Amino acid sequence: MTKPHRDPQATAELAARTMWAADEASRGLGARLVAVGPGTATLEMPVRRDMTNGHDTAHGGFIFALADSTFAFACNSAGETTVAAHCSITYLRPAHLGDLLVATAREVESFGRSGIWDVTVRVGDTVVAEFRGHSRKIGGSFIDPPATV
Amino acid sequence: MTKPHRDPQATAELAARTMWAADEASRGLGARLVAVGPGTATLEMPVRRDMTNGHDTAHGGFIFALADSTFAFACNSAGETTVAAHCSITYLRPAHLGDLLVATAREVESFGRSGIWDVTVRVGDTVVAEFRGHSRKIGGSFIDPPATV
Amino acid sequence: MTKPHRDPQATAELAARTMWAADEASRGLGARLVAVGPGTATLEMPVRRDMTNGHDTAHGGFIFALADSTFAFACNSAGETTVAAHCSITYLRPAHLGDLLVATAREVESFGRSGIWDVTVRVGDTVVAEFRGHSRKIGGSFIDPPATV
Amino acid sequence: MTKPHRDPQATAELAARTMWAADEASRGLGARLVAVGPGTATLEMPVRRDMTNGHDTAHGGFIFALADSTFAFACNSAGETTVAAHCSITYLRPAHLGDLLVATAREVESFGRSGIWDVTVRVGDTVVAEFRGHSRKIGGSFIDPPATV
Repeated sequence: MTKPHRDPQATAELAARTMWAADEASRGLGARLVAVGPGTATLEMPVRRDMTNGHDTAHGGFIFALADSTFAFACNSAGETTVAAHCSITYLRPAHLGDLLVATAREVESFGRSGIWDVTVRVGDTVVAEFRGHSRKIGGSFIDPPATV
Repeated sequence: MTKPHRDPQATAELAARTMWAADEASRGLGARLVAVGPGTATLEMPVRRDMTNGHDTAHGGFIFALADSTFAFACNSAGETTVAAHCSITYLRPAHLGDLLVATAREVESFGRSGIWDVTVRVGDTVVAEFRGHSRKIGGSFIDPPATV
Repeated sequence: MTKPHRDPQATAELAARTMWAADEASRGLGARLVAVGPGTATLEMPVRRDMTNGHDTAHGGFIFALADSTFAFACNSAGETTVAAHCSITYLRPAHLGDLLVATAREVESFGRSGIWDVTVRVGDTVVAEFRGHSRKIGGSFIDPPATV
Repeated sequence: MTKPHRDPQATAELAARTMWAADEASRGLGARLVAVGPGTATLEMPVRRDMTNGHDTAHGGFIFALADSTFAFACNSAGETTVAAHCSITYLRPAHLGDLLVATAREVESFGRSGIWDVTVRVGDTVVAEFRGHSRKIGGSFIDPPATV
């Protein structure tokens, strides 16, 4: 039996659509999927009032949540079920009410079932946070027809 | 002039009330401040549908956000303005829709203006995530009368 | 066939002896295994001149190396082959030529084949570094008779 | 009074020579400074027998130590005294006795007195470890004539 042909970009887009449909969290955050590709993703999210914690400063947890979503879209872009194992974030500068946060993820390294991904979160040209995620493939595919795992 | 006397527990409670009033993010998350003390805090938060990302699993970003809030209450419990510099989280087990997440923060070490804080996030007796936060005092007090910095 | 009985402390001591015999690195560092038990280990190491990097300050890499060894003895104390996946260290205060570094490891959490371990490195009562190691069991036992994996 | 002119590359080379002269640790490791530039450094080190811990596998602590040295040369390349605050390492694949480890550091971001630096450690084309270091400038210059801080 022959596998249906699907190029990496088409797979990444199918994986993203499938994830997005189930991802109430990213939608509830007001995030928008700007771009996705093989091993990469970009999401954006405006800082809403309910994401601030005094002085109209963005709560770090929401900056992290956007980075974490972006990481998830990137590390699942081959359609193989992949989860976050360990993540770290460094806050460089504050973000504020109304700022548009833009997070871009890229693969640093993959080894066996594991991977390292970096996500940079910017407001305009200014980097507000650097995030590094460690992923682990847990087996299986979540797209139809399935990824060639 | 004599300083008003205030014991560490009273200071921690005043600091928490002051922070909570300004913290739209933690309130918007549906978090509840369970307890606060000198160098410690406990917050709880039920996993809502808008915090899930497929299969009714909690989005890691919201588990992080709860841990990050708990860290903030603990590391600011002396009333000295303190910010998060770097945080990491390890996801041990998934949490699900309707689970009540309980996060407890404790100080590991402080050195100069810096500190290390650990936050454990549980559902019942089960640990779902371990968080480590690095804090930095940026000068000043946010309570009135001010903390003896 | 019955398994030979071996209590956790005896297993930890056997595992440590087996590891130590092969561990040229820890011996070359001048480290000494002070104590080992189920899920714990303590090693000590004096700061030699060839571990300093100016002003008689200990090079962070050697403080890390001692912590990493201590982590290895602790996370292998059940005799199941376990490797380091990811480690982080925070330097709190400098250590100096001639200081005796004492590192103590303890298990924070285990989940599936993974574990989190904390190592505190002290000089006397002063903490000089906090290390957190993430371990992964890769299958098999390195002691004879083997651990009941 | 005019400042002596010194371009960033010449400053980096002067800073590296100054550091190397005092760095008994890096020399004792058998490391060699391959290249240095503004915000970058490359060091190499063969895995010696006294860096192995069974099965001729390199002890993670020595891989870390090389990465940490490389980070130090890179983050001090402007001649301003800069220390490591927090470092993490992910081990991707084992290195073995006789392998030549090559570590390359680059600046990811700087913000205020803080910086983030990534170091990749390779054997040939194979990445064996990814290291991320967080630096902090503590004031002052260690080169003569001093850096324009």
